[in-house]
Amino acid sequence: MEDCIFCKIAKKEIPAAIVFNGKKFMAFLDISPANKGHTLIMPKEHYPSLEEMPDEDGKEFGEMQVKIAKAVMKASKAEGFNLLLNNGRAAGQEVMHVHMHIQPRFSADDFRYKWTHKKYGQGEMESFLIRIKKNLQQQYL
Amino acid sequence: MEDCIFCKIAKKEIPAAIVFNGKKFMAFLDISPANKGHTLIMPKEHYPSLEEMPDEDGKEFGEMQVKIAKAVMKASKAEGFNLLLNNGRAAGQEVMHVHMHIQPRFSADDFRYKWTHKKYGQGEMESFLIRIKKNLQQQYL
Repeated sequence: MEDCIFCKIAKKEIPAAIVFNGKKFMAFLDISPANKGHTLIMPKEHYPSLEEMPDEDGKEFGEMQVKIAKAVMKASKAEGFNLLLNNGRAAGQEVMHVHMHIQPRFSADDFRYKWTHKKYGQGEMESFLIRIKKNLQQQYL
Repeated sequence: MEDCIFCKIAKKEIPAAIVFNGKKFMAFLDISPANKGHTLIMPKEHYPSLEEMPDEDGKEFGEMQVKIAKAVMKASKAEGFNLLLNNGRAAGQEVMHVHMHIQPRFSADDFRYKWTHKKYGQGEMESFLIRIKKNLQQQYL
């Protein structure tokens, strides 16, 4: 997509520190890292949201998450890492082209996240369960 | 693994609201959700860390992320979602059995995360790039 910075990286129209160039996905270093070694995995095709990405593409996406997280851990000598994908403005997505962050973590770093734990009312959890299962089935009828 | 609550869910020794039961992975509702519809995807095998999980298993893991996120979005009528995996205590992992959170998000919710952006020194980004690529190659020699 024109004017999408990640599409330009995918097409090698602008340079990036490319860690791995797969069949449909590419991994490269975030130039403004949460911690050094912070890597992004993205589809080379322009999908603004994961909801537009074919399920089948999830296979390469997931395999790259595992492979690259292992390499990032060794290279950064981190104590842990987060995988984080922000989908939609409400979830903090800034570049509207699907990408998964691999963020090396250290006990003393300044990455913080928090949320309060909500409570399901009577029968509400079952209602969510039924709706999610129904939506999953509808996708694959 | 004995005393692992997620292994007990995988073996159906304790009940859970199971959304999808795949070949090697299972998805179920978090009983203490960030927002209602908050779902977890985990391998049924006990891997404390993603680093111990075979790369090959990433395929089913990634495909389930895409499929289930789509269903959770429809079922929760959320505005967006986060995928979040905490790997290691330093990254906020609490249950030491690999799991990916799918968290429905709304603009007005109380989920927050932040980090400061670090800067690479001269030549430092290239050094990380080389080390990550080297570690990737070493995994697959």
